[in-house]
Amino acid sequence: MRRPALPILGLVAFFCCARPALADEGMWTYDQVPAKLLEERYGFAPDAAWLDHLRLSSVRIGASGSFVSPDGLILTNHHVALGSLQRLSTPERNYVRDGFRAKTRADEVPVPGLTIEVLRSTEDVTSAVDGALKPGATVAEAKVQHDAKMAAIAQECTEKTGLRGDVVTLWGGVKHVLYRYEQYTDVRLVFAPELQAAFFGGDYDNFTYPRYDLDFAFFRAYEGGKPARVESHLRIEPGGAADGDLVFVSGHPGTTSRLETLAMLEYQRDVRLPARLDQLRQQRALLNAYVARGPEQARRARTRLYFIENSLKSLAGELGGLTDPALMGRKRAQETALLAALDTKPGLQAYRKAWTDLADAMVWARAHENGRLYKNSFGSRTLLGTAMQILRYAAEAQKPDADRLEGFHEAELKDLLRDLENPPPVFKDLDEVLLAWEFRRMADGLGADDPFVRTVLEGRTPEETAASVVAGTKLDGASFRRDLLKDRGKAVAASDDPLLRLARRADPTVRDVQKQFRDHVDAVEEEGLTSVARAGFAAFGADAYPDATGTLRLAFGKVAGYPFATTLVPPFTTFYGLYDRAYAFGDKGDFVLPARAAAHKADVNLATPLNFVSTADITGGNSGSPIVNRAGRLVGLVFDGNQQSHPNSFVYDETEARCVAVDIRGILEALRKVYDAGALADEMETAAR
Amino acid sequence: MRRPALPILGLVAFFCCARPALADEGMWTYDQVPAKLLEERYGFAPDAAWLDHLRLSSVRIGASGSFVSPDGLILTNHHVALGSLQRLSTPERNYVRDGFRAKTRADEVPVPGLTIEVLRSTEDVTSAVDGALKPGATVAEAKVQHDAKMAAIAQECTEKTGLRGDVVTLWGGVKHVLYRYEQYTDVRLVFAPELQAAFFGGDYDNFTYPRYDLDFAFFRAYEGGKPARVESHLRIEPGGAADGDLVFVSGHPGTTSRLETLAMLEYQRDVRLPARLDQLRQQRALLNAYVARGPEQARRARTRLYFIENSLKSLAGELGGLTDPALMGRKRAQETALLAALDTKPGLQAYRKAWTDLADAMVWARAHENGRLYKNSFGSRTLLGTAMQILRYAAEAQKPDADRLEGFHEAELKDLLRDLENPPPVFKDLDEVLLAWEFRRMADGLGADDPFVRTVLEGRTPEETAASVVAGTKLDGASFRRDLLKDRGKAVAASDDPLLRLARRADPTVRDVQKQFRDHVDAVEEEGLTSVARAGFAAFGADAYPDATGTLRLAFGKVAGYPFATTLVPPFTTFYGLYDRAYAFGDKGDFVLPARAAAHKADVNLATPLNFVSTADITGGNSGSPIVNRAGRLVGLVFDGNQQSHPNSFVYDETEARCVAVDIRGILEALRKVYDAGALADEMETAAR
Repeated sequence: MRRPALPILGLVAFFCCARPALADEGMWTYDQVPAKLLEERYGFAPDAAWLDHLRLSSVRIGASGSFVSPDGLILTNHHVALGSLQRLSTPERNYVRDGFRAKTRADEVPVPGLTIEVLRSTEDVTSAVDGALKPGATVAEAKVQHDAKMAAIAQECTEKTGLRGDVVTLWGGVKHVLYRYEQYTDVRLVFAPELQAAFFGGDYDNFTYPRYDLDFAFFRAYEGGKPARVESHLRIEPGGAADGDLVFVSGHPGTTSRLETLAMLEYQRDVRLPARLDQLRQQRALLNAYVARGPEQARRARTRLYFIENSLKSLAGELGGLTDPALMGRKRAQETALLAALDTKPGLQAYRKAWTDLADAMVWARAHENGRLYKNSFGSRTLLGTAMQILRYAAEAQKPDADRLEGFHEAELKDLLRDLENPPPVFKDLDEVLLAWEFRRMADGLGADDPFVRTVLEGRTPEETAASVVAGTKLDGASFRRDLLKDRGKAVAASDDPLLRLARRADPTVRDVQKQFRDHVDAVEEEGLTSVARAGFAAFGADAYPDATGTLRLAFGKVAGYPFATTLVPPFTTFYGLYDRAYAFGDKGDFVLPARAAAHKADVNLATPLNFVSTADITGGNSGSPIVNRAGRLVGLVFDGNQQSHPNSFVYDETEARCVAVDIRGILEALRKVYDAGALADEMETAAR
Repeated sequence: MRRPALPILGLVAFFCCARPALADEGMWTYDQVPAKLLEERYGFAPDAAWLDHLRLSSVRIGASGSFVSPDGLILTNHHVALGSLQRLSTPERNYVRDGFRAKTRADEVPVPGLTIEVLRSTEDVTSAVDGALKPGATVAEAKVQHDAKMAAIAQECTEKTGLRGDVVTLWGGVKHVLYRYEQYTDVRLVFAPELQAAFFGGDYDNFTYPRYDLDFAFFRAYEGGKPARVESHLRIEPGGAADGDLVFVSGHPGTTSRLETLAMLEYQRDVRLPARLDQLRQQRALLNAYVARGPEQARRARTRLYFIENSLKSLAGELGGLTDPALMGRKRAQETALLAALDTKPGLQAYRKAWTDLADAMVWARAHENGRLYKNSFGSRTLLGTAMQILRYAAEAQKPDADRLEGFHEAELKDLLRDLENPPPVFKDLDEVLLAWEFRRMADGLGADDPFVRTVLEGRTPEETAASVVAGTKLDGASFRRDLLKDRGKAVAASDDPLLRLARRADPTVRDVQKQFRDHVDAVEEEGLTSVARAGFAAFGADAYPDATGTLRLAFGKVAGYPFATTLVPPFTTFYGLYDRAYAFGDKGDFVLPARAAAHKADVNLATPLNFVSTADITGGNSGSPIVNRAGRLVGLVFDGNQQSHPNSFVYDETEARCVAVDIRGILEALRKVYDAGALADEMETAAR
């Protein structure tokens, strides 16, 4: 799954869906698996032991993964491992381009900063959270009080149990649940194929099916310097799945917004998505020009370009869904039915106000779009963003926990500091390009006389400003950052680092805009969608699943092809197809055969299934999720959704939307016949006995 | 190319396009090849010898084909040969299912009724045809006078030269050209693969690309009982074509209507195409129910179902084009530009009347749609249609040639009689099903009190009527038909065969409706589009190509993939892809591996190109067309257009529309490694020296 969690939708996340699920729909929490629906559709419903085993074998690793041996072996996607591969690479040792194979366990390489988590248990803390609400609080105050209480509960959990606590808001606030995670902080790289095998077809084939990608990689969790002995792991099904088979996906879908009202979706369709697509297209052009400077620049910009191309396809697909009369007609029908139900049942009419409030919030957001465009994410994804974070850390960490901005509560500081101390590699020339573009765009959009523009640029051109702050900053130095962050950022206030100075000038306006959006949009959405959720429960009952929140969910579906354009798309692909697609394009460019696939052509059983699709309901964050059969055995590895799955963000439709996975048979065949990594296949097969 | 000539557009054919060609556009007559355009785009323009050689190597065989050896060996599509294979098959000897291979020339099987033609020469006869027009003739009279003169010229040619004459109207009547054809009436089947190899993917993959079909077959022309020594044949290019190569297609595109005005296209979009699609969907349902009766019924209905599925995809694709804002926007822009040009050049305003007349004709046609739906093609494609033809033959053959209906002129009688004496196999039970449906549909559509309905049914139900006429007729007997047709149909008038009696009752109304459409629509279109053509010449000059007329044309283009949906579609496919697609679907249904492909998997060089696409401008009738390179050497065989090429009927666009072909390398590999038919490969290779 190459779909990132969507920043544009991030603010309206954490709400629930409250209508009866249809078809193979739903990203279900483990404590509310739709047993009746499964029994009806497939004659099978998993029991508690089955669910516990799958949950404890599931791994959170940025996105998703799973334990596949008792020795802590973790299977996930190559593209989930990509950041680690890049971090471990040097100009001399290119693990991205060439792949990586640890010949022995001693050769497994620690990845600095990589932590994985396993969900040990959950606990409903709704009454505690709601009890923290002071009488007469405004909507905005209530949000602050809720956040503070949830942070306190999480912190308490971490201190008492040693398990990381996180309070997750489900159903738009109907439920607050404490999630307790076991963490593994020593995670080592075991195996990754070369990028060309994992990402065969490049950006062209991203979000595409049929597909022929070996998008898998292995890590291993360590404890005390030795492979971790994990309690649960998945056993592989060497025979894979068959067409029509029931399968389950266990992973961490990031964000969906299926509860959003039509007014909210129309705002996305008319304002937000077009603006975001425009921004991404500009960034792509910018980075392509940077890449053209040379191979080192190409290496530096690769990950960013990859995420941009990925987001472009994803968001364009969503916009396609939002402009599709059939899909929007379904959303409209659902909304109409719910509103009608409210009118027919006594006492429910009051919920209607939520729809009006949300529509009003969208009117406000449309009028303040410039704030989102040019101020809300000021400097993000550059060293200026790091400066903004450091500045805020120093300010927020002084305050009582309840008064802090989200992201700076005591329980969140450990992760924040780790991120600030170990940011992704900084390339100053690239940051300068990005900042010059951001400042220029802001000056063009707001006008040279805009107070914020004047504050940021101080009379210089955007390009001069970018050049000077990047040239003068020392924030790219790890020890400099560590010194700043020491003692709750005591040294920050006195620093005259030019990036910190710029951050200091900008911060009041950025804080103000962010607060305004929190109060006028986010809080209204939170409140409104809670009401929408409650209205759904009241009208139709509680047999539903919550919107994705980046936490562990179970989806289900069947292995199935689908009709598309003129013909049928098959449920599986095979190694034959990899070679066909390479030679069909003349074995070059994004379709060049991976070197090892070319070398081992004669060794591979070409009819081995390579990728397959199922109807399971997934979204960004499900990357690396294990797919298991009724027996709980591993048959595949989610790595993408097809083009038609983009609207999964707001509506599921099983006609054409599919979850795209690497077949376990393809993984075993590749390990043994292509990568000389039979030991890993053996480890999984032994562990499956 | 599985696109049939479109009956719905047939009436408005024979008109020209009169705007400058863009891109790789155009189905050019051999006497007006766009040398300048080719020189500019590709730095190559064929000379007269090059063109003569390709023309004399091109074969008209229902659709298209070519000589590929001096011994009269003909290469065409399997689906062009399908009718012959079916005709030669028996329940014991199924050439369709199993394919056919003549081990020696002595085993080559004559196909009764199959005639092929080679275009020997053409002559402009415009002044003779126009000279036949009597002063003061109405539009309808002019059409009759033109038709009569053209028939006379054709007849004279046949009598004087022994070459079949045919006068073709180009440019909507701006030009009339006599085409002289050499005929070969002894044509024998040499080779055909099994249907599953030629039509792998079945109806699903029809009009689809990427594709993996061995849609080729061989015939041989005989003269005096021996293989014909033909003057010209194509030499194969064993290395095939490369991505980007310039290629030429020589074949017989059936019908295009690129000159049609927006009013005409809107009529197609709003009325005709939806009606025709509805009719075809009903027929499909009917035939599927018939097929379900048993394997023999399935065999009987196969060809019909095939053409229905084919037409459904094709017409749905056209309707898609007509409802595509981009394509229709281009048509609108062209029309606007032409009309504007008429206003700026002196003396051209008079042409504007054509657009008004055509719009009026469409209003008339919309008002009389019922006539087209229920009367115009009464009984066609059943034995009742044969009865209608026999009845008319007896009536028309008595009249002076100039007074006859089109299709019954003296020069046309030989072909007509051959068709009437050798109709496709008749299955009375199937005809009864089809007639009962037609009568029921007519009665429902027109109402039980409609005079035509009463005349046809004579108080019985549609089902009773169909059952009784089919049970009682002897028209399925060849000798009965021959007796009727003897002496210009002398015995027809006295026959009380129930189908002939029904035809006799219906004919006056059908004649009347057909005449009304000829006068109010066809003749207006002919006249109007001639004016549109002349307007185009006057405004933009004569550097243009005429609409397709089923006669020999030269198209050109380059080998090129294209972007589609999320990704790129490759220029070539390989044998790898055939196996991938089969195994991806579990090797079953429409995607089961052809038996011989399964058996010879290990023998085939899987990277051999199998199919490829080019931008050449083609349409239905181009099936079997040779594709040659600059050197005039054979690199492939047209067999389809992709989904995006359907709008070729009215507008060409090289962004995604592609001509789909079998690669010559795929044919050679299959002959040698799969079909044990190396002798044919050898014959072509020897002939290529």
